Amino acid sequence: MRLVVALGGNALLRRGEPQDEATQRANVRAAVRVLAMLAADHDLIVTHGNGPQVGLLALASEAYREVKPYALDVLGAESQGMIGYLLAEALHDEIPERQVASLLTQIVVDDDDPAFANPTKFIGPIYEASEARRLAEERGWSVAPDGDHWRRVVPSPEPRAIVEAPTIAILVEAGVLVICAGGGGVPVVVTSEGATHGVEAVVDKDLTAALLAEQLDADALLLLTDVSAVMTDWGTPKERPLAAAAPWALRALDFAPGSMGPKVEAACRFAERTGRSAHIGALEDAVSIVAGVAGTLVSDARDGLEWWEPRR
Amino acid sequence: MRLVVALGGNALLRRGEPQDEATQRANVRAAVRVLAMLAADHDLIVTHGNGPQVGLLALASEAYREVKPYALDVLGAESQGMIGYLLAEALHDEIPERQVASLLTQIVVDDDDPAFANPTKFIGPIYEASEARRLAEERGWSVAPDGDHWRRVVPSPEPRAIVEAPTIAILVEAGVLVICAGGGGVPVVVTSEGATHGVEAVVDKDLTAALLAEQLDADALLLLTDVSAVMTDWGTPKERPLAAAAPWALRALDFAPGSMGPKVEAACRFAERTGRSAHIGALEDAVSIVAGVAGTLVSDARDGLEWWEPRR
Repeated sequence: MRLVVALGGNALLRRGEPQDEATQRANVRAAVRVLAMLAADHDLIVTHGNGPQVGLLALASEAYREVKPYALDVLGAESQGMIGYLLAEALHDEIPERQVASLLTQIVVDDDDPAFANPTKFIGPIYEASEARRLAEERGWSVAPDGDHWRRVVPSPEPRAIVEAPTIAILVEAGVLVICAGGGGVPVVVTSEGATHGVEAVVDKDLTAALLAEQLDADALLLLTDVSAVMTDWGTPKERPLAAAAPWALRALDFAPGSMGPKVEAACRFAERTGRSAHIGALEDAVSIVAGVAGTLVSDARDGLEWWEPRR
Repeated sequence: MRLVVALGGNALLRRGEPQDEATQRANVRAAVRVLAMLAADHDLIVTHGNGPQVGLLALASEAYREVKPYALDVLGAESQGMIGYLLAEALHDEIPERQVASLLTQIVVDDDDPAFANPTKFIGPIYEASEARRLAEERGWSVAPDGDHWRRVVPSPEPRAIVEAPTIAILVEAGVLVICAGGGGVPVVVTSEGATHGVEAVVDKDLTAALLAEQLDADALLLLTDVSAVMTDWGTPKERPLAAAAPWALRALDFAPGSMGPKVEAACRFAERTGRSAHIGALEDAVSIVAGVAGTLVSDARDGLEWWEPRR
């Protein structure tokens, strides 16, 4: 099968862990062992989040005061280089017989996406209110309260087209394992005059993964995270893991906007548009998920919601 | 023709200029106009230096004190992402009809390359002697005097194989303009046990370009820089630009180790190993260089040295 596999940004750098290279390399190594198992039987297109990494690059860029910090699109591209290398290097070590390509990916978004008028995606460090106001003024940022502090917010527009899609298709056809669209891809707009330029925005990486899976005619979309399945009544005593769901039934439920929400939306889109299966589950269960014995299957062929039986 | 084009790192960020994004984007734009002209008639594989960019990323990584700085191989990968994006975005704007792929590239170097025992390549900022000693101790760096100050030095091993060469070949065959091997590629060693890991070293980007051109069966290698040709008696009143040279005749001359030296060596290697032509000259003259009316042609078919006639 041809699988698009999306790794959460937190799969590689977890909140609360040190953000250093050794930690990230250890996490990459664990992820790559899973990818190598999948790659034994399937063609893989791997995509990944970059939240913690681009946050780190932004902090470093700001800490060095001699040069004006680089914009978010460039930092996102840097994070694609960083993560793309760490994954490719570890994959080359794990499955040297397989060609692996880490491809810088741009994603077209609409110039007039309503998200540009309403930035909602938190990025980078927290600031005190006065500092946040100063930065907003100085750099033209939007800022918004996040708990007790303030943070920068950027637009999160809809992914419309993957600039490098034909290239990715060529590589996949040739049997190359492709790492691409890291962090949802670097967002670019194509103006009505036909000019292309990068924009300071963050495209949701799961929505990009769904588009990628659709455009590449993937047999399935795997959204891997740190929970074993989509839960109904998450965080309550009634919490139960879903085994399978129809998109319409899943859409009727509520999920956390920043985390499970986009995964569910991405899975539903892929299932609805292609009639094929999307899966949401834990990175370490990936092989079982593909075999249908773990995670949550999202498919138009299912009728309503089905839960896993509680373990005894 | 199939051309491998190597852009100097200073083509994108020049010494003495501000190191900021706007400056780099303006330089990228100028370089891309030249590449677009070449791409109209030829298949291009574009490679580039990353000295100023990786230096900037190293300074930023050190300035942010909360996280231990990332190693040089990771910073090199980040710079490939940054430059690969800026080039790909500008090319997409300039020649939207052409697929462009920016590929993270690893380069295999020998574990026992003598360069590892004798680091010579200066990288990053200058330090006072005491600071340099402290960093050498703390981080296991090698440091060496550079003029009145001290700097970190890293090994510059020979490029042996391009990990992604088969992937690059697939893309070139499919008509994709490929940007790859930035900064000479991220150096990795393959141990006698078959394990792969990145190393803190810098492979000369011109030598990598020569290997790339050889492995991809390129018709010609273009080494573009900020001087119009290879000069004999450079910097003296007798200075004269070479129109053409046989590798043996060029090797008998002396060139600056850090700048023209590696270009001449790379051109000679490609010419000797393939019997085809390498060219050294100015970025803005690229089209004339390919047409044979500018720059220095290095070819086994030439006999000794030929100079351009002085302009009147």
